[in-house]
Amino acid sequence: MTKKIPVGILGATGTVGQRFIQLLESHPWFEIEWLAASDRSAGKTYAEAAKWNLNTPLPGRIARMKVSPAAPDGIAPKLIFAALDAKAAREIEPAFAAAGHAVVSNSSAFRMAEDVPLVIPEVNADHVDLIKSQQWYKDKGGFMVTNSNCSAMGLVLALAPLHRRFGIEKIFVATMQAISGAGYPGVPSMDILGNVIPYIANEEHKMEEETRKLLGSIKGSSVVPADLVVSAHCNRVAVEDGHMESVSLKLRQTASAEEIIAAWNEFRCLPQKLKLPTAPEQPVIYETAPDRPQPRLDRDRGRGMSSVVGRLRPCNIFDWRFTVLSHNTIRGAAGAAVLNGELLRAQGYLG
Amino acid sequence: MTKKIPVGILGATGTVGQRFIQLLESHPWFEIEWLAASDRSAGKTYAEAAKWNLNTPLPGRIARMKVSPAAPDGIAPKLIFAALDAKAAREIEPAFAAAGHAVVSNSSAFRMAEDVPLVIPEVNADHVDLIKSQQWYKDKGGFMVTNSNCSAMGLVLALAPLHRRFGIEKIFVATMQAISGAGYPGVPSMDILGNVIPYIANEEHKMEEETRKLLGSIKGSSVVPADLVVSAHCNRVAVEDGHMESVSLKLRQTASAEEIIAAWNEFRCLPQKLKLPTAPEQPVIYETAPDRPQPRLDRDRGRGMSSVVGRLRPCNIFDWRFTVLSHNTIRGAAGAAVLNGELLRAQGYLG
Amino acid sequence: MTKKIPVGILGATGTVGQRFIQLLESHPWFEIEWLAASDRSAGKTYAEAAKWNLNTPLPGRIARMKVSPAAPDGIAPKLIFAALDAKAAREIEPAFAAAGHAVVSNSSAFRMAEDVPLVIPEVNADHVDLIKSQQWYKDKGGFMVTNSNCSAMGLVLALAPLHRRFGIEKIFVATMQAISGAGYPGVPSMDILGNVIPYIANEEHKMEEETRKLLGSIKGSSVVPADLVVSAHCNRVAVEDGHMESVSLKLRQTASAEEIIAAWNEFRCLPQKLKLPTAPEQPVIYETAPDRPQPRLDRDRGRGMSSVVGRLRPCNIFDWRFTVLSHNTIRGAAGAAVLNGELLRAQGYLG
Amino acid sequence: MTKKIPVGILGATGTVGQRFIQLLESHPWFEIEWLAASDRSAGKTYAEAAKWNLNTPLPGRIARMKVSPAAPDGIAPKLIFAALDAKAAREIEPAFAAAGHAVVSNSSAFRMAEDVPLVIPEVNADHVDLIKSQQWYKDKGGFMVTNSNCSAMGLVLALAPLHRRFGIEKIFVATMQAISGAGYPGVPSMDILGNVIPYIANEEHKMEEETRKLLGSIKGSSVVPADLVVSAHCNRVAVEDGHMESVSLKLRQTASAEEIIAAWNEFRCLPQKLKLPTAPEQPVIYETAPDRPQPRLDRDRGRGMSSVVGRLRPCNIFDWRFTVLSHNTIRGAAGAAVLNGELLRAQGYLG
Repeated sequence: MTKKIPVGILGATGTVGQRFIQLLESHPWFEIEWLAASDRSAGKTYAEAAKWNLNTPLPGRIARMKVSPAAPDGIAPKLIFAALDAKAAREIEPAFAAAGHAVVSNSSAFRMAEDVPLVIPEVNADHVDLIKSQQWYKDKGGFMVTNSNCSAMGLVLALAPLHRRFGIEKIFVATMQAISGAGYPGVPSMDILGNVIPYIANEEHKMEEETRKLLGSIKGSSVVPADLVVSAHCNRVAVEDGHMESVSLKLRQTASAEEIIAAWNEFRCLPQKLKLPTAPEQPVIYETAPDRPQPRLDRDRGRGMSSVVGRLRPCNIFDWRFTVLSHNTIRGAAGAAVLNGELLRAQGYLG
Repeated sequence: MTKKIPVGILGATGTVGQRFIQLLESHPWFEIEWLAASDRSAGKTYAEAAKWNLNTPLPGRIARMKVSPAAPDGIAPKLIFAALDAKAAREIEPAFAAAGHAVVSNSSAFRMAEDVPLVIPEVNADHVDLIKSQQWYKDKGGFMVTNSNCSAMGLVLALAPLHRRFGIEKIFVATMQAISGAGYPGVPSMDILGNVIPYIANEEHKMEEETRKLLGSIKGSSVVPADLVVSAHCNRVAVEDGHMESVSLKLRQTASAEEIIAAWNEFRCLPQKLKLPTAPEQPVIYETAPDRPQPRLDRDRGRGMSSVVGRLRPCNIFDWRFTVLSHNTIRGAAGAAVLNGELLRAQGYLG
Repeated sequence: MTKKIPVGILGATGTVGQRFIQLLESHPWFEIEWLAASDRSAGKTYAEAAKWNLNTPLPGRIARMKVSPAAPDGIAPKLIFAALDAKAAREIEPAFAAAGHAVVSNSSAFRMAEDVPLVIPEVNADHVDLIKSQQWYKDKGGFMVTNSNCSAMGLVLALAPLHRRFGIEKIFVATMQAISGAGYPGVPSMDILGNVIPYIANEEHKMEEETRKLLGSIKGSSVVPADLVVSAHCNRVAVEDGHMESVSLKLRQTASAEEIIAAWNEFRCLPQKLKLPTAPEQPVIYETAPDRPQPRLDRDRGRGMSSVVGRLRPCNIFDWRFTVLSHNTIRGAAGAAVLNGELLRAQGYLG
Repeated sequence: MTKKIPVGILGATGTVGQRFIQLLESHPWFEIEWLAASDRSAGKTYAEAAKWNLNTPLPGRIARMKVSPAAPDGIAPKLIFAALDAKAAREIEPAFAAAGHAVVSNSSAFRMAEDVPLVIPEVNADHVDLIKSQQWYKDKGGFMVTNSNCSAMGLVLALAPLHRRFGIEKIFVATMQAISGAGYPGVPSMDILGNVIPYIANEEHKMEEETRKLLGSIKGSSVVPADLVVSAHCNRVAVEDGHMESVSLKLRQTASAEEIIAAWNEFRCLPQKLKLPTAPEQPVIYETAPDRPQPRLDRDRGRGMSSVVGRLRPCNIFDWRFTVLSHNTIRGAAGAAVLNGELLRAQGYLG
C-alpha cells in the first residue's frame, strides 16, 4: 500500500475515542487526519481538550492536532469512526452520511435501523451489503455501519460458531461489566468500590435484540433476526476493562463438549482469511483451566480482539454452561469499529 | 430469663468464628464460655491465637479467654456453634454430637446427610425434628443441625415465599460472591483486585442440592427434596461482604409482579412469631429503586439477617427475573447458625 | 431536656449532608426541622432530591420532608449545620449569619477569616469566643463557627496532646485519603480503582494553615497561629472512608515513647468533661499492633469520632514517626460540626 | 551476536520469577535454559508447577520445561537470575556462586554484605567491580551481584541525578506500595480491599540503608555509604503494580525547579550509552500534569523501567517536595536484575 487512507474520529476525546487513537496511531492502512469533539473542545489542541486516560502515552502528533467541531463541512476523510453517545449520534451521524462519508459508528443510535448493518466481521460480514439500500449511499455514496453493544460483542462471538454448527434456541446470560464501559467520568467511585451495581440502563434490552440481529440472516434488503431468545441480567463490577458473562445455552442439536470446544477453537472467518490488520488470529479461545477466563489475565488475548471462553460444563436446565470474557473498549468498541472499517475497505466500499 | 445458656465455639479464630463472637457477645440468651481452635492455637489466649478482622473491637473478656483444643473432653456447654472447614468438621463434629452436645454447624460436611436437618428457621423449621432420628440423640441426647451454604441462604429466603404461594419449577442463578466467603487469608489480593474469578470449588453443586433440600418436605424421618431444578453459575468479585445473585425463575402458577412483591414483603415465619433475638423483623425486603440491592448499601439490612430483593421484571425465557443480596458471613453463616441455636432452644431441644 | 432544639441543614443532599442526617436523626439535643439544597432540589421531597448513599436506611420522616431553597427567609431554626462547597458557602453562609442564625459550617470558605473560630472542641474550645467579635453577632446575634478540613482533623487531634506537653516544631505528613472526602459523584472510578492520585486541589495548603490556627492561641480578639511548620503531601487512595496519614514530628522538648503514648491515651478535654453527646470517650486511641491503624478496621472507633494512632517509632531525621487515622466524613466533617454545635449549646451560644 | 547466552532462573515459579520469564523470553542476548524452584515443584513441568499470573500468555516452550531442584549440580548456564525469598537465598545463592556461577540476585539476603555489589546500572555501575574481592570469584570465577529493594529503586533513580549535581542531605519518603511487591499469594484480599496497611516488615530499614549504599562511592574494595539520612514510612495500598512515593528533600546546594527537572530529564548513564537491551531510553521522566504520576497510567513508561516523577514544588521544611513512581516487579525487581545481567555481560564478567 503506497499511501494510507485518511480517517476522522467523531467524539475523539472520550473513552472510546481515545481507544480509536491508540489503535489507529500505527495502523497499516489508516491515518488519523481529523478529530472532532463537542463544542466545548472544538478549537483547542487535542492535548488541551482531552484528559488522556490510557496507559500508553498520547502520541505527540495527536496531542498537537486541533479539535474540530462535529460537523461535516468540507472535511477531507471519507472514513469517519464515530464514538458519540446515542443522543449526539442521532443528530450528528446522519449529517456525515448524508454528506458522503462512511460512518463507522460505535453508538447504539442506529444499530437496529432496518437499513443499517450491525456487523461483527467474523459473524455476519454479509450484512454489510445493507449499505446499498441506504438513501445516503444512493445519493452521495455516504453510508453508516455499526458495531454492537460491548456486552453483546463477546457473547455473540462465542455464540456464532455454535449457532452455525448446532443452532441455538435459548440463552441465559448474566454479565459482570467493567467500569470503562460507562465512559469517563462514568461510574462514581463511591458507587462501585467494593460494590456491585445490578443495573445498567437499557443494556439488557440491547443485548437481547442485538444478538438476534447479529446472528440473523439477510433476506432481500433486510435482516431476519435469528430465531432465538436471550434473557440478560446486566451488572457492573469493580473491574477496569473486560466484560465477564455467565451463560447457559440451549442448542437445537445435541453437541458434545469436545464438539463445542472444537467449534470455538476452529472458528476462522472472513477477517482472518482477508488478514485484516485488526483481526485476531483466533477469534474465540477456549481456556481449559477451571478458573478462567479472568479479566485481568485474559482481556488482552489477541490484542484485546479475542473472546475468551472457559468452564464449559453441562447445565441442569439447558444444555451447557460456560463463561465468556471480552475486552469491552477494544473488541467491544473501538477495535470492533476499526475492524469494520477494515472490512469495508477490503470489500471496496471506501472507493 | 434468669441465667444465660453457656455456649462453645468450634473454629473460633476464623472468619466465621469471629462473627460468632461478635454476634454472641451481647446475646440475650447465650453466653460464650468455651472457645476451641486448631492445635496451633490451643493453649494461647484468644487475642494471641486470632488475627481479629472485624471492624468492632474484640471484646476484652474474649481476648483473655484461653483457646481449647477441638475435643469434647469434659467441657460444660451443651450448645456448640461450629465454624470448621468441611474436612475438620467431618471428624470433629460427630465426636461432639456423640458426647451429647448440640452441634449447630456452619460446615458443609453433613448438610446433605439423611438424618441431619439443614435448616433456615424461616423456611423449614419443621425439619429440625430429624434430630430425633439421629443415633447420637438416641444415645446421649447429642445431635447436629446445619445451616446452608452462604450463597444458597439468601436465594432460598427469597424463593421460599414464592415457592409456598406459586410453586417454583426452575431457577437460573448467577452469583457475584464476596471475598469474606472464602475465609482468611482466603482469596489472594492479586487474584481479585480489579478482577472476577468465575469459579468457586463445589459451590454450584452445593447451591443446587441444598436449595432442593431446604425447600423440601418431611416425610417420615427424611426429607423429600423439592421438585425443582437449579442451575447455578458462581463467581467471586472484589466485594468485602454480601453475595449478589442474578436470578431467573419459572413458577408453577402465574403470579403478577404485585403478588410476588407482596409475597416477599409479607413473609413472616416462626422466628418472627417466636421473636427469636436474631430473627430480622422482615426476612425478605423488596427495594424499589432500579439499581438496588447493592452490597455496600443493603447488606446490613435487618442487622445483616434480611435478604434484600430488587429489580423484579419479566424474563424472556422463564417468568421473572430479579436480583437478591444477603450478608454472607451474617445471614449466610454465623447469624444463620445463631438463629438455628435460638430455634432449638425455643423448641426445647437444649433441655 | 424537655424539648429538642430545632436545627436546619444547608447542603443536605450531598455526602456530608447525608452524614448530618444520619448523625442527627436520633440526637438527644437536636432535631432536624429544615433541609435546604440547591435550586435543582428545592421543592422536591428529600427522597426525590437526594441519592441516599449510606448503609443505614434513610429515615422515613426525612425522606418525606420538603427540601427548601438555600435562603434564610423566615425559617425557624437558629442553629444551621452547613455542608456547602466553598463557592456556595462564600455567598450563602454570611446571609444566614446576618439573618441571626448560628451557622456551624464544614466549608473551607471562612475557616481562615480572622473573626471566625476554627474549632475542634477537644483542641481549642476557647476559640469559640471569637464569635463575639463578629459583626453579625453584634447586629442580630447570628454568627459562624467552622470545623477544619478532614485531613487536618485527625492529625490535629493527635498533635494537640503532644503540643501541650512537649511543644511541636515541625511536622511532615503524607496522607492517603478516602474517596468520600471528594463528595458525590466525586472521584471517577476510572481514576482511582487500582490506582493512587497524588494530588488533591488546595488540600496541602489547607492542612498547613489550619493546623497552625487550630493549635494557635487567642490573643485579644484574634488567633495567634502556633509557631510550627507543616509540610503536607496529599494523596487519594481507593478507600471508602478513613484518612490515613504518615507523620514525622520534631518536638521542642524530648519525650519518650511511653510519655507520648500516655499523652495520647490520657487526652481528655472539655467535650468529655461536658459529656457532649457526640464526644468520643477517648479522643485519641493508641493501637499497639504493628500494622494498625487501618481504615477498614479502625475508622469507626469512638463511633467514628476518635483519632487512632499507631506505629510510634523513632524518626531518623526528626524525633518520632507514627501513623494516624480518622473517619473523614464523621470526625472529619459532619461529626465535627455536630460536636461544635453541642459545644455552642453547652456554652450558651444558642440562647 | 551469533548465539544467545544460556541463563537459569532460581525461584522461577514466584511473582518475580514469572516476570523474569516474561522479560527474558524474547531477550536478544539471553536464553532461558534452566528453571529451578522449591522441592515441591522440582520434577514437574513449569506449567504444572507454577500458577501463571501475568497478563501475557505463558510461553509454550517454558510451559513444557522441567523444573529442577535449586542446586548447582552440573548445570550448564553460568548466569543465574535469582528470585528467592531472603531465607532461601541465604543458603542457596552462595552455593551457586561457590560453584562458579554468576548469581544476579533480587533477594535482600546479601545486599548489604561488604563485598557484594548492590547495583542500579544508571546509578553506581562502578560498584560492580567489588566482584573481584569476592572469594568465590577468586576461587572459581563465580560471584554475586544484587539489585535493591523495590521501593528503594524508583526513589534512588530519582535521587541520583540530584545527588550528583546538587548533593542530597536529608530525605523524607512515604510510600504507597503495590500488592505484587508481596508476591503470591501475598497480601490477603480481606486485608487490602478498600484499605491501607501502614506496615511492611523491614521495608523502611531496607530503604534507608540501601539508598545510602547505592549512592555511596567505592573506596578500595568497599563502599562508603553516601552521607545522607533517609526517614521512610512504608504503606501498602490496593494497587496491582507500581510503587508511589511522596518525597521531601534537603539539598546541599540550592537548585531551582528548572534545574532539578533538567537534571531528571537529562539523566543518561552507562546503560543508555551501552544500549543495554533492557535500559530505558530515559531513566527518569518528569511529568508536568499536576496529578501525575499515577500507577495505572505511568508504571509502564520505558517498558516499566523508567522512574516517573511529578509534582515538584517547594517544601515548607526542606527544599523540595515531589512524587515518584516506578514499576515494582519490573524496574523494582526482575527488570533490574536483567539490566544488571546485561551490564555484567557488557563489562566482560560473563566470560
